[in-house]
Amino acid sequence: MNKKLSNLINNVRQAVPLVHHITNYVTVNDCANITLAIGASPIMADAIEEVAEIVAISSSLVLNIGTLNHRTIESMILAGKTANDKGIPVVFDPVGVGASALRNKTAQRILEQVKVSVLRGNISEMLYLSNLSSSTKGVDAHEDDLSSDAVKVSGELARKLGCVVAITGAVDTISDGNRTMLVKNGHSALSKITGTGCMCSSLIGSFCGALPEKSFESAVTALLCMGIAGEIAFEKSGNVGNGAYRSSLHDAISNINADILESRAKLYEV
Amino acid sequence: MNKKLSNLINNVRQAVPLVHHITNYVTVNDCANITLAIGASPIMADAIEEVAEIVAISSSLVLNIGTLNHRTIESMILAGKTANDKGIPVVFDPVGVGASALRNKTAQRILEQVKVSVLRGNISEMLYLSNLSSSTKGVDAHEDDLSSDAVKVSGELARKLGCVVAITGAVDTISDGNRTMLVKNGHSALSKITGTGCMCSSLIGSFCGALPEKSFESAVTALLCMGIAGEIAFEKSGNVGNGAYRSSLHDAISNINADILESRAKLYEV
Amino acid sequence: MNKKLSNLINNVRQAVPLVHHITNYVTVNDCANITLAIGASPIMADAIEEVAEIVAISSSLVLNIGTLNHRTIESMILAGKTANDKGIPVVFDPVGVGASALRNKTAQRILEQVKVSVLRGNISEMLYLSNLSSSTKGVDAHEDDLSSDAVKVSGELARKLGCVVAITGAVDTISDGNRTMLVKNGHSALSKITGTGCMCSSLIGSFCGALPEKSFESAVTALLCMGIAGEIAFEKSGNVGNGAYRSSLHDAISNINADILESRAKLYEV
Repeated sequence: MNKKLSNLINNVRQAVPLVHHITNYVTVNDCANITLAIGASPIMADAIEEVAEIVAISSSLVLNIGTLNHRTIESMILAGKTANDKGIPVVFDPVGVGASALRNKTAQRILEQVKVSVLRGNISEMLYLSNLSSSTKGVDAHEDDLSSDAVKVSGELARKLGCVVAITGAVDTISDGNRTMLVKNGHSALSKITGTGCMCSSLIGSFCGALPEKSFESAVTALLCMGIAGEIAFEKSGNVGNGAYRSSLHDAISNINADILESRAKLYEV
Repeated sequence: MNKKLSNLINNVRQAVPLVHHITNYVTVNDCANITLAIGASPIMADAIEEVAEIVAISSSLVLNIGTLNHRTIESMILAGKTANDKGIPVVFDPVGVGASALRNKTAQRILEQVKVSVLRGNISEMLYLSNLSSSTKGVDAHEDDLSSDAVKVSGELARKLGCVVAITGAVDTISDGNRTMLVKNGHSALSKITGTGCMCSSLIGSFCGALPEKSFESAVTALLCMGIAGEIAFEKSGNVGNGAYRSSLHDAISNINADILESRAKLYEV
Repeated sequence: MNKKLSNLINNVRQAVPLVHHITNYVTVNDCANITLAIGASPIMADAIEEVAEIVAISSSLVLNIGTLNHRTIESMILAGKTANDKGIPVVFDPVGVGASALRNKTAQRILEQVKVSVLRGNISEMLYLSNLSSSTKGVDAHEDDLSSDAVKVSGELARKLGCVVAITGAVDTISDGNRTMLVKNGHSALSKITGTGCMCSSLIGSFCGALPEKSFESAVTALLCMGIAGEIAFEKSGNVGNGAYRSSLHDAISNINADILESRAKLYEV
């Protein structure tokens, strides 16, 4: 792996960026802890009366519609617009888009009204956003979702939306419309615990907060961190069970460094 | 234990049912993780604009009033009615009923307007719903709550409501009004971590999602899983402390299988 | 350490006080689990229709504005006033005050309309409330925040507000306006996982629930528990990573007792 990329982890740990999340209540604790583990600092705030002020003191904004409601949707739009005004990168995680009209309409509103730096989701969600056929079944991606479509979809969507698109799955695909990279790290055990997708978005937000001009590199390195941590966690406690694996995943993110990234990365340019 | 019952775990793992939860924000992450650990797939969504669509793509619905509010109450009613229309089983967990007029009124509304497949709670909550005397003190059941009343209450309530009633405690009592079974597995350490009751409801929802025609068997097997996992977790890490025990509980559920159920079940027909 | 203080842990475990929380959705699960681990019983309820009833059956109330919104703010005020009417101690955790007008206004409203027994926060939050200069950067305190100001600020604020003020950081400072004590236990790893501040407030609430007349002793002993548990957790799993550390922290609280407190306390009167 490129030394330049693996060293970006040090930028996060030196900058300790404040990452404002408006996110779901299912995995919010995991998101806060993974943000701390990578070396950034989380702040969760969703009241419309305060999100503009909170995002203004933050280094990046993560919007996640996992448990959206009419109150938080408006807060996401306002926070996103404020982030744009201030030049603060926005990561958007359209959890479950395709599963309900509310999610579809909200994702569309956010993409129309907010300039997103990185869009991250599974192939099912990204296919919906590409207006291609999609059969979303809930919020978890399935192995077979990750088809060769990912390269095509990520590139097209990145050009269409003018942002970095990261499609996570057995292989992660990251495109800015010109360049497309594949992260072949990871482990199937990651799909057996909740929140790994949301945590990917928090990690991307952490890197973007430290490296606002490097959305593509941020997304690639963040997904390398999660993929490699998923492997290390399995090596440590894969045979123990889901509880131990989850704990080991947080351990592995907190211990990750440039050397580990460099030696273990399975990163390919398409 | 009956081989037929212990094999139901395989039905869950083959079907991977999508379990829609409208639940409290205290234990929601535990519920999502335990649903994954047993082999099902969780989706949490509570906006009234989308719950009808979400439940329609789900295999079962879990309603839990642990942190109810006026917004989510209406979503629960709508989701419950939609589930009924679609023939999707509903598990209802009336957390803390008896402790406030809002909980009492909401539990009553749900039981009147939604056909529930399985009602699960502690003896204190079930006594309230039976209009018998009850002294609810918060959301946690106490050892002495679990009296011989459980058999009587579960049977009466099951006949009155026309659903399966599962009363959890030191001994779990499950009745469909005709048959009543006792699960004598479990460990007192389960009462020292939050969410074990909520997780029982998620497990019941997971089984019901795979076995919509078998509410009674679903409830019995789900509670066997939790009881046995509670014992195994204590054997693994009972002396370490609450954090380790909680993690081991998730491990044990993820590792449970028909053989373990069969060899360890302490299941009795009344 | 004073034997009288260390024995207060036994009061909590004998009384098993019910601790009503209106708190944020980020760390609420940690708060519930730590409350159970110390020997108390948590109940989380935030609907305005029920908070007066819930607090009336509780032994103490913890108000935490970490993810406040217009709905829960009114519930906090009502619950706080009801607690005052019933003589139930109130612990207030003004998370992130100084970071937004909404937090500032809400903290002010609570302090004006509710008689608080213990106010707990980091030095940045306490400086804001003292109307001294403050540069709040999010919700996490930084090492250098904990200046010698803490003694001065805690004493002044305690006298001004007529309550116990607990400022947590590398050293914890607790003052009732007359007496000021320092807890020099703790570990920097505590700042690497989310919720340790919120959990401190839950522990204080647990002690206050058992010892309503002893707010100062409650705050001191609760912070000793967290500081010592933070050290023990690091000894057990400091080299493993953040996930293991978090789990060990819950273990250590569940195992803490008067002997451990007495032998490890680094408690100083100013």
